[in-house]
Amino acid sequence: MRQAFGRLPAARPPLQDAARFTGGGAALAMTTDAFVVKPLVFPGGDIGKLAICGTVNDLCAAGAHPRWLSVAVVIEEGLDLDLLAAIADSLAATAEAAGVEVIAGDTKVVERGAADGLYLVTSGVGELRDDARPRSDRVEPGDVVLVSGPVGDHGVAVLAARHGLPLDPPPRSDCAPLHEVAHAALDAGGMSVKCLRDPTRGGLAATLNEIAGDSAVRLRLDEARVPVREETRGVCELLGLDPLAVANEGKFAAVVSPDSADAVLEAMRASPLGEGACAIGEAIGSGPGTVTLRTSFGTERLLPMPSGELLPRIC
Amino acid sequence: MRQAFGRLPAARPPLQDAARFTGGGAALAMTTDAFVVKPLVFPGGDIGKLAICGTVNDLCAAGAHPRWLSVAVVIEEGLDLDLLAAIADSLAATAEAAGVEVIAGDTKVVERGAADGLYLVTSGVGELRDDARPRSDRVEPGDVVLVSGPVGDHGVAVLAARHGLPLDPPPRSDCAPLHEVAHAALDAGGMSVKCLRDPTRGGLAATLNEIAGDSAVRLRLDEARVPVREETRGVCELLGLDPLAVANEGKFAAVVSPDSADAVLEAMRASPLGEGACAIGEAIGSGPGTVTLRTSFGTERLLPMPSGELLPRIC
Repeated sequence: MRQAFGRLPAARPPLQDAARFTGGGAALAMTTDAFVVKPLVFPGGDIGKLAICGTVNDLCAAGAHPRWLSVAVVIEEGLDLDLLAAIADSLAATAEAAGVEVIAGDTKVVERGAADGLYLVTSGVGELRDDARPRSDRVEPGDVVLVSGPVGDHGVAVLAARHGLPLDPPPRSDCAPLHEVAHAALDAGGMSVKCLRDPTRGGLAATLNEIAGDSAVRLRLDEARVPVREETRGVCELLGLDPLAVANEGKFAAVVSPDSADAVLEAMRASPLGEGACAIGEAIGSGPGTVTLRTSFGTERLLPMPSGELLPRIC
Repeated sequence: MRQAFGRLPAARPPLQDAARFTGGGAALAMTTDAFVVKPLVFPGGDIGKLAICGTVNDLCAAGAHPRWLSVAVVIEEGLDLDLLAAIADSLAATAEAAGVEVIAGDTKVVERGAADGLYLVTSGVGELRDDARPRSDRVEPGDVVLVSGPVGDHGVAVLAARHGLPLDPPPRSDCAPLHEVAHAALDAGGMSVKCLRDPTRGGLAATLNEIAGDSAVRLRLDEARVPVREETRGVCELLGLDPLAVANEGKFAAVVSPDSADAVLEAMRASPLGEGACAIGEAIGSGPGTVTLRTSFGTERLLPMPSGELLPRIC
């Protein structure tokens, strides 16, 4: 994730989902994420699966092949041991599916009442591709905005589970490791994939606002082209949320130069987790970094950066 | 730290303070640690300084030069912002002193009552030396046990602060990054440094029991030669603790072949953080992995692995 702790240098390059560094001559990327989701288990996933997916997807978004992960666990005294074992199994199975090795770990137990049962922190190291360089500050006017499938499913699943909404079937999180579909897009587009991002907290709205700001462009989406499942839209209406500002954990947004957009889209659609991929907008000019939405009524409105109440604890 | 989460393969090499891996052809090490210390600030340090030192020292113990760190922060809503800023500054200053870069971060805020104010999780990647290979399973009979200075200071400082013991001056934690003194020892001893460990939770007793078990040797210490500050010994008596089982955050234990012990000791003593280094015992034979203590009365007793109440939250 992009949030940083402590002081940052005054003039710095924009924060990416993972940091690039050169270790012993190798081009690597590193990322870390804390997971404090409530409830610990939700339809489509749990905190263990989420912790692996979040880190794998951040590394992919930096153009890296995810390889080695560490997991630190803060456990509240009294946590049900069967639940803990199920979460550990889910974490291990997701790591295997994503082709990453968990090579380091730490466990701390804290008193009853702290840590909401369980917090997980995963960090990951990946090997950077040399034929792609997705970054949030490379987008130019004319570039096309793609999304790998319908948005808002993760946040809606977690919120419905937390509030005990009586929905049948309950909405499912899209939580999934995106290494295959993300690297399929990078294989197809190479350097023409200007930016790749997994729109987690704050959803597509937050991610696109960050990209627009970092690249100093204006992004315009067509509301009618942004894929949202009917069920997800329904829960959003019930809870007063904008699906574009709701978290995803198994989707990415890509911004691609226009001559490569079709090839990248085709590559994404050929991958099971990218079947629902589509083009949803474009960078229409340089500017102060805003995102606008062309509504189905033909009007155009600002899609603001979500804040406060719109950023519930969903990861 | 060595504690692992989830299933481990039945036959596995002993866990080390950091995991070794080869990334893009480079020999690297990775480690992670969760910090949940109470109180957040104590004489000699705070949770920010501790988080950097713990990760730096684990990488050194694996024979790596610590280089890149990530920091994840879980903040309790309502945490005093000046305190948070002071901890972030301390973290940044310690990272600078240790010569490491914090390249990735994440921040999560949880509800009031959770997270005891603040938890920190640091992960780190270092570059492995090719001229040294300290591991817990390389110790052989005849090897000499060294310690870089007096033990027990960190645990005692934290416990005295937590319990508000009216001591003047209050005991100070030894919390410090050990990169200089650890690599001075490795420069001097190379492959003869069989094992290097920072004895954190469970102190020297836990660390030496792990080494004895992993190497299947018997380690014997001379109680009179184990350095313990008078003030630390006093607080331990007051609280009913064994200073050998109390945590350190600025010391390491090394096990070195006998022909190199003097040179390694001399190198350690030449470094400001190793001035109090001394030889405290030896590996006296193969065996089931026990540690014994020759007391000042001439008797010999088992130094057991600490457990339960002896492992308070000091990091």
